Amino acid sequence: MSVLVVGTVAFDSIETPFGSAERVLGGSAAYFALGASLFAPVRVVGVIGGDFPQEYIDLFTQRKIDIEGLQRDRGETFHWRGRYHEDINVRDTLELHLNVLAGFVPRLPERYRQSEYVFLGNIDPAMQAQVLDQIRAMKLVACDTMDHWIRESPEELRKVLKRVEMLVINDSEAKLLSGYSNIVQAARAILKMGPKVVLVKRGEYGVLQFSDGSIFATPAYPLEEVFDPTGAGDSFAGGFLGQLARSRDHSEGGLRRAIVYGSVVASFTVEDFGVKRLASVELAAVEERFQSFAKLTDFHS
Amino acid sequence: MSVLVVGTVAFDSIETPFGSAERVLGGSAAYFALGASLFAPVRVVGVIGGDFPQEYIDLFTQRKIDIEGLQRDRGETFHWRGRYHEDINVRDTLELHLNVLAGFVPRLPERYRQSEYVFLGNIDPAMQAQVLDQIRAMKLVACDTMDHWIRESPEELRKVLKRVEMLVINDSEAKLLSGYSNIVQAARAILKMGPKVVLVKRGEYGVLQFSDGSIFATPAYPLEEVFDPTGAGDSFAGGFLGQLARSRDHSEGGLRRAIVYGSVVASFTVEDFGVKRLASVELAAVEERFQSFAKLTDFHS
Repeated sequence: MSVLVVGTVAFDSIETPFGSAERVLGGSAAYFALGASLFAPVRVVGVIGGDFPQEYIDLFTQRKIDIEGLQRDRGETFHWRGRYHEDINVRDTLELHLNVLAGFVPRLPERYRQSEYVFLGNIDPAMQAQVLDQIRAMKLVACDTMDHWIRESPEELRKVLKRVEMLVINDSEAKLLSGYSNIVQAARAILKMGPKVVLVKRGEYGVLQFSDGSIFATPAYPLEEVFDPTGAGDSFAGGFLGQLARSRDHSEGGLRRAIVYGSVVASFTVEDFGVKRLASVELAAVEERFQSFAKLTDFHS
Repeated sequence: MSVLVVGTVAFDSIETPFGSAERVLGGSAAYFALGASLFAPVRVVGVIGGDFPQEYIDLFTQRKIDIEGLQRDRGETFHWRGRYHEDINVRDTLELHLNVLAGFVPRLPERYRQSEYVFLGNIDPAMQAQVLDQIRAMKLVACDTMDHWIRESPEELRKVLKRVEMLVINDSEAKLLSGYSNIVQAARAILKMGPKVVLVKRGEYGVLQFSDGSIFATPAYPLEEVFDPTGAGDSFAGGFLGQLARSRDHSEGGLRRAIVYGSVVASFTVEDFGVKRLASVELAAVEERFQSFAKLTDFHS
């Protein structure tokens, strides 16, 4: 069962207290695709510039990620430069160059129009809507967003929210979107905007899942070494939707296990710079950490 | 099996975004005792002034809390005034009057010297040591501390840490005590200072338990209404040690269940101002929420 993602494919330049990396592969669609491809076939919709190197293309194809929907436009690839603080949970954006992303109009290859699992990564909600318009068969659509779109494109975003089953969103952004400072109230308000499920990402503190009838709370996998948190949220979403596509289990328990799989994938992502660890991790290691995760949180035995 | 606590018994004056309270019952020993007394008999060591009202004494005795060790000295009761921000996890101390606490020398009634479960609440580590000196039979000693003592009395604190089995500490204070900004590294460093178990309190994000061989991670119980976080950590410790004293189960599973009981007690504490909800909650409601907690975190069924 294929998972389609639309989002950014980018160059990231990253500084953390532990080192730095220049113009490495990044972007929401890249992290999502690498995470999801551990579990299921993935199709990418996005845009790159003439400067996007073959080695990153090869990385996608090695992981059997379908990049027919990754357009190459004239100009430079989207570039983000950020610096993490001593407290690795805090970061500043130093530079943001939209480049080819500025004029991007998503066009889905014919094959992509039958995609049952869809993730609308963090891009302009107008582009997210254009992708939805082109898909004919959808079983489950999840989307992400960020403070910029909540502030600058609230109406477009509200329209997208009415069309998706799930929203995957940061703690602080859920509060901004809803106007509530309490996360439970915030999530309940967002459930009224359209999504049937809201996943709140809390970084090193884990994830909360809200639906009409229930709440699921899970911590993050505690790590001794967090080198680079970039892409944690997108690879979480990739692991989550990838596992859902693999299991086709949309029950409450199935969603919860998919969240734990997503958390496990994210825990690998942050162990090295950029996509380095995520791109090399194998499913067996993910399954093993899933079992550790179960032990880590068990208080019944 | 009795639980002995030494700590502050105080007047708290509290402002939160939802209201305010003047000179209400507070202090680490008060919150701990009310939490622990749901599960086991509790003995309090502390000091109050001539201004401490009979109604608060009555509250302790109604909950069968033994206050023979609560000395009444000349002067005024310890008084703390704080204000919580719109983000309820952030607070400022506006006033701090030690009053009778300044010259406090803990003296344990003879009966108290046989106390198998001991909690050294957040007071001067020199006073914590004086309490330990007077106890003859101990099965399990846990202690708490805060940034002030980590900075101002590091040597006294280090001596206490060598004498306790468990440290219950905030996230930020664990980092300050250890010098590590990663919480797993911080806890590992603290385990080398003496305690066999470190419990890291993360407020609304839950608790991490570290011991030599394992890590336990649990979220906090998600609440739609948090009126006043004061005393959450101390009532958590009370529920935790109270449950350990009730169950006498010091296995890894027993510790983990005690942590969940502590989290449940703290979730009641923050639902109203000061000790109001904590003082009225009954064990049946705690047991019920323990079951909800199990459902909230389960991803196996």
